[in-house]
Amino acid sequence: MTIRRARWAVGLISGTSMDGIDAALVQIEGPGDRPKVRLHAFQTFPYPPAIRNQLLRVASGSATSAREISTLNFTLGQLFADATLAVCHQGRVAPRKLTVIGSHGQTVFHQGPSTRSGSKHPGRTSQSSTLQLGEAAVIAERAGAPVVADFRAADMAAGGQGAPLVPLVDYLLLRHNKLGSVALNIGGIANVTVIPAGAGLQEIFGFDTGPGNMLIDGLVRHFTQARRIYDEGGKWAAKGKLLKPVLNRILRLPFFHHPPPKSAGREQFGDKFLTHYFLSQRKAEPADLIRTATEFSVRSIADALRRFVFPRAEIHRLIVSGGGAHNEFLVDRIRDLLPELDLYRSDKYGLPADAKEAIAFALLADRTLQGLPGNLPAVTGARRGVILGKISRP
Amino acid sequence: MTIRRARWAVGLISGTSMDGIDAALVQIEGPGDRPKVRLHAFQTFPYPPAIRNQLLRVASGSATSAREISTLNFTLGQLFADATLAVCHQGRVAPRKLTVIGSHGQTVFHQGPSTRSGSKHPGRTSQSSTLQLGEAAVIAERAGAPVVADFRAADMAAGGQGAPLVPLVDYLLLRHNKLGSVALNIGGIANVTVIPAGAGLQEIFGFDTGPGNMLIDGLVRHFTQARRIYDEGGKWAAKGKLLKPVLNRILRLPFFHHPPPKSAGREQFGDKFLTHYFLSQRKAEPADLIRTATEFSVRSIADALRRFVFPRAEIHRLIVSGGGAHNEFLVDRIRDLLPELDLYRSDKYGLPADAKEAIAFALLADRTLQGLPGNLPAVTGARRGVILGKISRP
Repeated sequence: MTIRRARWAVGLISGTSMDGIDAALVQIEGPGDRPKVRLHAFQTFPYPPAIRNQLLRVASGSATSAREISTLNFTLGQLFADATLAVCHQGRVAPRKLTVIGSHGQTVFHQGPSTRSGSKHPGRTSQSSTLQLGEAAVIAERAGAPVVADFRAADMAAGGQGAPLVPLVDYLLLRHNKLGSVALNIGGIANVTVIPAGAGLQEIFGFDTGPGNMLIDGLVRHFTQARRIYDEGGKWAAKGKLLKPVLNRILRLPFFHHPPPKSAGREQFGDKFLTHYFLSQRKAEPADLIRTATEFSVRSIADALRRFVFPRAEIHRLIVSGGGAHNEFLVDRIRDLLPELDLYRSDKYGLPADAKEAIAFALLADRTLQGLPGNLPAVTGARRGVILGKISRP
Repeated sequence: MTIRRARWAVGLISGTSMDGIDAALVQIEGPGDRPKVRLHAFQTFPYPPAIRNQLLRVASGSATSAREISTLNFTLGQLFADATLAVCHQGRVAPRKLTVIGSHGQTVFHQGPSTRSGSKHPGRTSQSSTLQLGEAAVIAERAGAPVVADFRAADMAAGGQGAPLVPLVDYLLLRHNKLGSVALNIGGIANVTVIPAGAGLQEIFGFDTGPGNMLIDGLVRHFTQARRIYDEGGKWAAKGKLLKPVLNRILRLPFFHHPPPKSAGREQFGDKFLTHYFLSQRKAEPADLIRTATEFSVRSIADALRRFVFPRAEIHRLIVSGGGAHNEFLVDRIRDLLPELDLYRSDKYGLPADAKEAIAFALLADRTLQGLPGNLPAVTGARRGVILGKISRP
């Protein structure tokens, strides 16, 4: 079924930072393989602190129970439904007018096939799995509209990493006939999509470069007892000095030398990492640790482009999105290290930096309803393009 | 979309007994609201003991982790896919010829709205949730056919108990213009569907009556160190004598006096119950405990019919299915206590007792693909009929 008429859709995601739910209300026009999208309303709905703490605990590998996972799945479903109704209200669109809601849900566990860096069991792919919470049936019931959710499982079932999934949307919205582009999303984790000039779908690739804001946010939370949750504009980092031995030690980790496809998450760069490499530096000033964590993200991004991207494609533009796009210090440092690229925020292309991922899942859901594949095998490592997600009807 | 042509479907379920996966290959003809179904192949695939033990542990409320739940979900997905391919092979139908696979999955947690008996928080419905494992994307990928899974969530999102779901299928396949019927399924839990003579959909009701084989099986496993997993033909029970004080004590529990709709699971009648009421009787003979557990199932079923069914509908036939239909002692005792009913095994109606639940989920999946509701609000307590399950496309 190909839909061309203008249609309303909502995209929902809570990222690895687990701060809250990003909800984007968009209007999509044109066929699923050549869509135009316009952001109509966007809002972030912070999680209640008790829920966030619960999620952080569950995702950190702490003991939980089937009851807790089940209850949390339905509770998050209600919160994702709340976010849907609120962003529709903001945009003055009745929820039941939505053609589709694409809900990424909240990842509490993700592990790609064991071929990826750091695995202790190369070749044992059966351990690969992913778990997103936020019951889609609850969202469908309360919104009165179809929901596509659980986007990562189908790609993993086809042998892929289940991530990243935004690259197809980057391709659809950012491709250019003459200019080679890298779309860089700096969320908890940072990832890139490489779109060579005039590229077809098969030439797109992308991967996670490592931490984005995850370590910076973790340090800010730690040193402010969670009164602040991110380093606004990078001002705190700007006051610190770089701890070179720490930086050099972590940049030597195998993840950064492993060629793509590769994906990263809280499993690698979460609290354990933070404690082991940063909080163990008991004599270091907070500003120095935040500066070093920021430089770690910057260097891992720049190194990844030089190692794995520039040898394969001529790149002219770097288009930055995600919460990290607001960290001026971080973005300036990326510009310093990659002076040959023109650097823009994704806002310039109708994709506000904060809203891009949520917009992406609205578009991926639109593709699923139309029976179009949503993964890029060259990006995720899957054997083939597959229809992502599961459809719940109201 | 209404489909009338003959179509192949597979139904998959592992019940509360967690013994293994029942897989039914069926041919369905006619529209979704008036289907004819023919069982073409059926097989039960026992879980590997390590998986079963892991499931029992997770479902019992023991500590687990997001990693374990996620991994188990994908591992079970592979086992459900194995079962699909094997039953298709047995029936000589290529898996990709299937119109749909209906996979119930494995319940590891289920709690209906708190209005049900035994809840400590009446009115707090937000705790209602359900969790089935067995990743549908893995089944869809390996079979190359659409999968409908996660049938219970939509009913619960609409305020229902999420169970029982088989009554609609009982209605479709067992209704009779002149005879009032009760379909009794004796799985781990026992449930009834009441189909008054000439009834329309709105007059159907049903509920869980309490334990079916769960306690009997638990005792047999306990006393044989799991060398045997059920009481074949009820021979062990037949040798024992009834412990009336134990029976009377448990029959007084509020669950049995609570009017339908109501649902039960391992949460109420699992290992904790077994230990508390049965294994604590240290002086009792194994045969006496098994006899008493059997009588407990029999009495709770017969009492439920007398209390909640006969006052509402004239019943002529009792049609028995599930593993308990093979327990001759148990079935004879039901016949003793309900002499006014004609008692048959569901086999007589083309629904082999062991295969009925698996067949039911093939039919429910067929309805979902056609956009037809699959729950009965009068049975589950939901506010309305809803389309059950989530669709994964290969």
